[in-house]
Amino acid sequence: MRAALMYAAGDVRVERVADPVLKESTDALVRITAACICGSDLHHYHALPASAGPVRMGHEFIGVVEETGADVASVRPGDLVVAPFAYSDGTCEFCRAGLQTSCLHGGFWARDGVDGGQGEAARVPLADGTLVKLPVGPDDALIPSLLTLSDVLGTGHHAAVRGGVRRGSTVTVVGDGAVGLLAVLASKRLGAEQIVLMGRHTARTDLGRAFGATDVVAERGAEGVERVRELTGGGSAVVIEAVGLRPAYEQAYGVVRPGGTISRVGAPQYEEAPIGFGSLFGHNITLTGGPAPARAYIDTLLPDVMEGRIEPGRVFDRGVDLGGTPEGYRAMDAREALKVLVRP
Amino acid sequence: MRAALMYAAGDVRVERVADPVLKESTDALVRITAACICGSDLHHYHALPASAGPVRMGHEFIGVVEETGADVASVRPGDLVVAPFAYSDGTCEFCRAGLQTSCLHGGFWARDGVDGGQGEAARVPLADGTLVKLPVGPDDALIPSLLTLSDVLGTGHHAAVRGGVRRGSTVTVVGDGAVGLLAVLASKRLGAEQIVLMGRHTARTDLGRAFGATDVVAERGAEGVERVRELTGGGSAVVIEAVGLRPAYEQAYGVVRPGGTISRVGAPQYEEAPIGFGSLFGHNITLTGGPAPARAYIDTLLPDVMEGRIEPGRVFDRGVDLGGTPEGYRAMDAREALKVLVRP
Repeated sequence: MRAALMYAAGDVRVERVADPVLKESTDALVRITAACICGSDLHHYHALPASAGPVRMGHEFIGVVEETGADVASVRPGDLVVAPFAYSDGTCEFCRAGLQTSCLHGGFWARDGVDGGQGEAARVPLADGTLVKLPVGPDDALIPSLLTLSDVLGTGHHAAVRGGVRRGSTVTVVGDGAVGLLAVLASKRLGAEQIVLMGRHTARTDLGRAFGATDVVAERGAEGVERVRELTGGGSAVVIEAVGLRPAYEQAYGVVRPGGTISRVGAPQYEEAPIGFGSLFGHNITLTGGPAPARAYIDTLLPDVMEGRIEPGRVFDRGVDLGGTPEGYRAMDAREALKVLVRP
Repeated sequence: MRAALMYAAGDVRVERVADPVLKESTDALVRITAACICGSDLHHYHALPASAGPVRMGHEFIGVVEETGADVASVRPGDLVVAPFAYSDGTCEFCRAGLQTSCLHGGFWARDGVDGGQGEAARVPLADGTLVKLPVGPDDALIPSLLTLSDVLGTGHHAAVRGGVRRGSTVTVVGDGAVGLLAVLASKRLGAEQIVLMGRHTARTDLGRAFGATDVVAERGAEGVERVRELTGGGSAVVIEAVGLRPAYEQAYGVVRPGGTISRVGAPQYEEAPIGFGSLFGHNITLTGGPAPARAYIDTLLPDVMEGRIEPGRVFDRGVDLGGTPEGYRAMDAREALKVLVRP
């Protein structure tokens, strides 16, 4: 089959790789019909050293089950399924607690001999715990929205849930990428009253307004902090950090209200950062978040997508075939595209 | 009057200072009858540069009201009162929300021209919001336990509350100082089932056991982490960090369970520390805590102290008069004393 490989920063190619085969009785083989490029893939696109490549890419996909191992019971050949960005057994204590990204036997796509989502097919480990059957066909108009259940919608939802967003909340979202915009949508869905979106790409912040943002702040740094503190009457009780870079985290603790919560879902591209008296401790700021258990949220969010109450698929503003994946990366990196749908 | 002054690290003296007088109509003057030395005072004792001294010290006290400003309504001359470690107006939005340490008009003792607790008397700003009348006399046997309402009991309680401790919780407490031990007591009071205390001073950990610790881990570093993970079957859902030094924080994220919470109440003596994928983010660890709104907790905890259901005053293992304050610092710094009561 063909799949995207990243050889080094800025160097993505689509090449022939080994066809996946069943290895464990809990595996399924899935022919991928829709995948996409994630903002977090761009971290590799900026920094992957040639010595670490080539690596498989992609962790969001929908596809048709082609074959299942003897112990797979929940899906069968012919089913259309969506895969969350982490596979998980569905039975360990963390899965049962709804934290599938810490599954004792799970893992992430495109690592450790597991296929990526940007390819024609994938072996899915722990298929029963991982895959969710979709009640539509592979060419349904809802596919873009359903594909966001793999990651970005669940991640935006996780940010809001962990931040404690509820009816009447004031929320500030740092970052106007797909996750930031879907954190706006998720906050709105949970009843937030004021949603401040920090971003400066008008096409994106316009979509943010459509998703529920009540205010847009284009300024950054001290000016951005001042503007948000003004708009929120002294700071935002909930701040969602949807970027993963240190300046976004600094922005977050700059705008949070005493006693408030910063919920991070942008995979941090830093290890150390301020958490002392002057940043978090002095005013009892809570820092939370992490990789979203997207699998847990599919059940919660699927009905709203199916019934058209939310349209998260609007984050896709470009589509390519598998061969167009390198161009998709270039367009997202250049901020010409917000999020690119790949149809293998 | 006389008060303790710290001239530089290791140099505490008791000297004559100006008698406090009422400055604002919301002030009260309090003659201090019981005060104490806090683990956080030792940070100054280790590091205060001579160029920054002399500074007043102490932020925990009980005393008798001697005079009140015209606008003070809740206490009157002759009342025995306890002061929390921050003064606060009791009326701003943060006070109303129970976060008096972020009061818009409040502050901390021994700063900005406000007296410290280690002295014969103090001007108390915002007396109505700050002071709580005690239903005993100044020589009551309960005074040591009541004095812990100023800080260490409220701080231990805050750690447990912010950590989400409830019936059946597993909690690990890093640090066997007075705050750590009272975090054990507070966790037990809230129904924790397993309480692991990390500390290696037997006299202290024995008191920790009396307060409710079910396990004591004397090891530190990787060995301590391994021992706690073993005792808790894979990590502690709640970890209370009651020290404020970076190794204690590192210990905390080493022993926390995926999806768990680290609650910090030791004033951090560092600003930057790890919070990325490998420490907090990867397993959705929540970091919370800050200066305890001790004022808010006095109402909650006072009945249990009055009725003898808890005996937090057991953390005091030495008493001095005001002149003995420098010796009290020395003894606490040398770990000869756990916590020193000062009777001016």
